[in-house]
Amino acid sequence: MGGSLALALRGKVGRLTAVDSHAATRQQALQQNLVEGITADFTTAARAADLLIFATPVRTILHLLAQLPAIRPDGCLVLDVGSTKAGICAAMSDLPESFAAIGGHPMCGKETAGLTAAVPDLYEGQTFILCKNGRTTPQIEGLAEEMIAAVGAQALWLLPEEHDRLVAAVSHLPYLVAATLMQTAVALHDERAWPVSASGFRDTSRLAGSDPYMMRDILLTNKTAVLEQLVQYQAHLQEVIDLLQAGGETELAAWLQEKQGERQMYLRWKDGNR
Amino acid sequence: MGGSLALALRGKVGRLTAVDSHAATRQQALQQNLVEGITADFTTAARAADLLIFATPVRTILHLLAQLPAIRPDGCLVLDVGSTKAGICAAMSDLPESFAAIGGHPMCGKETAGLTAAVPDLYEGQTFILCKNGRTTPQIEGLAEEMIAAVGAQALWLLPEEHDRLVAAVSHLPYLVAATLMQTAVALHDERAWPVSASGFRDTSRLAGSDPYMMRDILLTNKTAVLEQLVQYQAHLQEVIDLLQAGGETELAAWLQEKQGERQMYLRWKDGNR
Repeated sequence: MGGSLALALRGKVGRLTAVDSHAATRQQALQQNLVEGITADFTTAARAADLLIFATPVRTILHLLAQLPAIRPDGCLVLDVGSTKAGICAAMSDLPESFAAIGGHPMCGKETAGLTAAVPDLYEGQTFILCKNGRTTPQIEGLAEEMIAAVGAQALWLLPEEHDRLVAAVSHLPYLVAATLMQTAVALHDERAWPVSASGFRDTSRLAGSDPYMMRDILLTNKTAVLEQLVQYQAHLQEVIDLLQAGGETELAAWLQEKQGERQMYLRWKDGNR
Repeated sequence: MGGSLALALRGKVGRLTAVDSHAATRQQALQQNLVEGITADFTTAARAADLLIFATPVRTILHLLAQLPAIRPDGCLVLDVGSTKAGICAAMSDLPESFAAIGGHPMCGKETAGLTAAVPDLYEGQTFILCKNGRTTPQIEGLAEEMIAAVGAQALWLLPEEHDRLVAAVSHLPYLVAATLMQTAVALHDERAWPVSASGFRDTSRLAGSDPYMMRDILLTNKTAVLEQLVQYQAHLQEVIDLLQAGGETELAAWLQEKQGERQMYLRWKDGNR
C-alpha cells in the first residue's frame, strides 16, 4: 500500500522520505527508486516532514500516533491509510491542537504485501475513503482530496463508525469466509482435493493468503463490527442449511435465483460507476 | 460446458450433432459453426449417435438416462459431464447390458452459462474426473481417455462417492459461501457498500452469480455431502468467532498464519502441477 502510494505520488510531491524498519525493504526501495530518502528512524523522519502518511498495520499506527506529540511539539499534517478507522480517528482527535489530521483508507488492497507487489496504478479508479475527526481542518481536507485526485482515486467521506461497519461486511468478513473455506478443504485430509478444485475455489479462497499481522490488527481493532457481521453471516448460512435439509425445490430455486440477481445488481453497480 | 466441448472437439470427431430445446441457442450454435447438426428432438438424435454426451443440469441427465433403454434398445456409448456423480453413475448402472457408460466431470466451469461463454481452450490443462460404474467397459474407458487427451485435459479416476464428497468441499461449498456473503452485504441496506467493496469482495462473491438451475440440481443430488461440508464449515466459523471473542492476540495470529500457510501450500500444489 505504502510502496504503491509512493510510486503513484512520484514527481507530484516535493520530497518523499520513507520509514521502514527492515533493512532489505529499505535497500529495495532505493533500488526501485521509489523515494528520495529512506530511514529506519521514525523520530528523525517525522521531525523533518510537512505531511506524515502512516501505512502500516493499524495497531502500529496507533502506537506511532501516541508518540507524535513528543516528537513534534509544533504539530504537523497527518494522514493514514490504515484498514480500520474508529480507533485511529479517536487517537487523531486526542492529538494536540497544533496537529491537523485525517483518517484515510484506499479500497484497493492486495493479498500480497511488500514492495515487490507495489504498482503505480493501484489507486486508479478506486474508492479512497476519508474520515473526519476532532483534528480535521480545511487545510488537511483539501490536501487529502488533492492527493486522492493525483493518484487517480475517488474520495468518499464516511464517519469512522460507518466505515468500520461497511468494511466489516465487504472486506473483513470476506477474508474470514475465505480462510474458513481453506480450512474446511484442508480438513478433508485428501490431496485429490487440489486437482479437483478449479477457478471457483481459487477465487473464493484467495483472501486466505492475506498478511496475518495486518489481519490480526484489523480484527482486533474492529472486533465489534466484525463479530456483528459474522453473526449475521452465520444466521444466513443456517437459512441455507435449513432450506437444503427441507429439500423444497421451489424454495431452494428461489433462494439461488435471488443470490444470482444480487450479484448481477452488484456487478451493474460496479461497472456503471467505474 | 457443452458448447466449449463442441469447440474443443471440432475437427477431431466424425460428426457432431447437438440437441438443445431453445430455438435461439440452436440458431446461435449454427451461426458459430459449433456443430454439424442441431435439433430439438432428443429421440431422433439419440437414435443416430454412436456416443451420447450429456451436458445438462444433473436432474435432466437423470431424466434422459431413464428414457434411453426405450429409445436405444440396441444400446450405445454414453458419457456425461454433469456436476455430481453418485446419482448419475447409479442410473448408468441401471442401463441394460447393451450400453457402455462412464461418468465424467471436467473441473473447469464458469459462473456464466450459455454459448456466448463457450471457448475452445476451456479444458486445456484442467482436471477431467472419470467415474466407473456397472456399465463401464474397456471400450468406453479408452474412448473417454482419448477424448480427454484430445481436449487437452488430464483424467482423474475417482469413485462416484469420492467425487461427490470432494466437489462438495471445493466447489459446492464455495458457491454457498459466496452466495451467503452476497446476501450479508445486501442485508446492510447501504448502497455505499458497493463503492467501499474492492477486488476481495468481487472475487469472494463471484460464484454467487452461478446459474440457479444448475446449482439447484447440484445441491439436491449431492445433499448429504454438501450438508456434511456445511456443518464442518459452520463449526470452523464458530472457532473463529470464539477466537475473536476471546481476543487472544497470540492465538488469533497463529490461526491467521496457519490459513495463509494453507493457501500458500495450495498455490504451490496448483502451480507445480499445471
